[in-house]
Amino acid sequence: MIFGITMGDASGVGPEILLKAFREGALGHRVVAFGDLAVLQRADRELGYDVPLRAVSAPAEHQPGVLNVVDLGLLRAEDVRPGQVDVRSGAAARQYVVAATEAALRGEIRAMVTLPMNKEATQLSDPGFTGHTELIGALCGVPDVTIMLASDELVVTHVTTHMALGEAIAHIKRDRVAKVLEMTCRAAERLRRNPRVAVAGLNPHAGEHGLFGREEIEEIVPAIEWAQRRGLPVEGPVPPDTVFYLAARKKRYDVVVAMYHDQGHIPIKTHGFERSVTVTLGLPI
Amino acid sequence: MIFGITMGDASGVGPEILLKAFREGALGHRVVAFGDLAVLQRADRELGYDVPLRAVSAPAEHQPGVLNVVDLGLLRAEDVRPGQVDVRSGAAARQYVVAATEAALRGEIRAMVTLPMNKEATQLSDPGFTGHTELIGALCGVPDVTIMLASDELVVTHVTTHMALGEAIAHIKRDRVAKVLEMTCRAAERLRRNPRVAVAGLNPHAGEHGLFGREEIEEIVPAIEWAQRRGLPVEGPVPPDTVFYLAARKKRYDVVVAMYHDQGHIPIKTHGFERSVTVTLGLPI
Repeated sequence: MIFGITMGDASGVGPEILLKAFREGALGHRVVAFGDLAVLQRADRELGYDVPLRAVSAPAEHQPGVLNVVDLGLLRAEDVRPGQVDVRSGAAARQYVVAATEAALRGEIRAMVTLPMNKEATQLSDPGFTGHTELIGALCGVPDVTIMLASDELVVTHVTTHMALGEAIAHIKRDRVAKVLEMTCRAAERLRRNPRVAVAGLNPHAGEHGLFGREEIEEIVPAIEWAQRRGLPVEGPVPPDTVFYLAARKKRYDVVVAMYHDQGHIPIKTHGFERSVTVTLGLPI
Repeated sequence: MIFGITMGDASGVGPEILLKAFREGALGHRVVAFGDLAVLQRADRELGYDVPLRAVSAPAEHQPGVLNVVDLGLLRAEDVRPGQVDVRSGAAARQYVVAATEAALRGEIRAMVTLPMNKEATQLSDPGFTGHTELIGALCGVPDVTIMLASDELVVTHVTTHMALGEAIAHIKRDRVAKVLEMTCRAAERLRRNPRVAVAGLNPHAGEHGLFGREEIEEIVPAIEWAQRRGLPVEGPVPPDTVFYLAARKKRYDVVVAMYHDQGHIPIKTHGFERSVTVTLGLPI
């Protein structure tokens, strides 16, 4: 079983993270990197690591003891602009994700991990780019995707992600909420038996019965009722400022569905930042 | 030095919390309650505590060894509707806060603590009621107030509080942000020497230079620059999903200014729920 890892933005921290992880034995599996060999060679020289690097044309050529790289040949060593928002690094970072996703869809790798891109840099060549999640979803032909963040203490999915908060509010519609509830419950059932999924409200105190906003009444509750009619183990809306406490500390819920990026990211990062993973969820085609 | 404590909603948990705190010696100071003696007597009977209760007409009449109550005489024992949203309990709960605040303004008590009200119940008689913070601010004639939440690990203030999230976004204007920065820095300087105050962004990644919203550029940054010109120790805007981690775990900041209710409440409650206090801050008249 071979796993893929994308190199991330060549002018960012991705190459260093990848080399360091290999050197420390932290990759822990048969892993093939998708990136630029010349960039990794430059980073390795600058860091003084002397990591053994080897170009492969496909994941199946993986050999142990070296860092195997599917070399996309997009950037030369001198193209790297350390710490800069760079159009070529941004475009290449996107291509590494495309290549890894296509390899996964062909069954050449079993799963993929992504190193950090710079959204601004990638948008210089692809203005519609919003993030790994949406890109991977589009490449898979899956219209409905969401981000799951998982740490030891808390697992969260998101109804909306990378957009202005005002825009996110406008996107909280019952159809989208219902789809994320379905994706979340499917994923939760793979994490544990009889999972309990809590749905956060959008507004303070989950709107306090309409006093502070009506999105709960008009969009979120109908989606929860739809899911419950289908037998999905969802509850809510729960006030946003207590639901993460109930899940992480009181173990009353296994997964929380957050309405927007920071509602879900704040408790995960404040709580268990060092040991959390980001997962892209989608509904099957 | 005498402290006041308000009884909260008579049909809610306030009377029980008050009696239990007295009984366990948790009040810890010379404390006078503002509430209804008949309601406390009923709760005491039902709980089987046998707490010694004594009516006083003013805080100065405080005597040790009993729970001293400024008896407002608003509710009879039979008016209590346990667990219900009740118009009379809601109106009375507001009056306890009014009485305690007025006693504080006359110098009869040095500080006051408030037990839980039910916003819906109070709004049945006072539709404009939004919370303790705004009520106390209005009684003090202070137009600019904010909520500070403080736990051992994290201290947070809020630019907006009890309103729908969409409405909160519309209230994030540079003047309001600047006032909250000033209130926060004044309070932070009373908490510790040379405090470091972080300002959270509103949008994911603090807007990522305008990609996800422009409130940071148009409203938050100008307020921060205004504060910095006045020598206030503020930094930001910092991405909302990392600022609380940096403050609580890395100790890089002493206080975080949150833009909306749940941005500040989620990390405090998820983190240090059991030991946190809520403080009303205002600018002097």
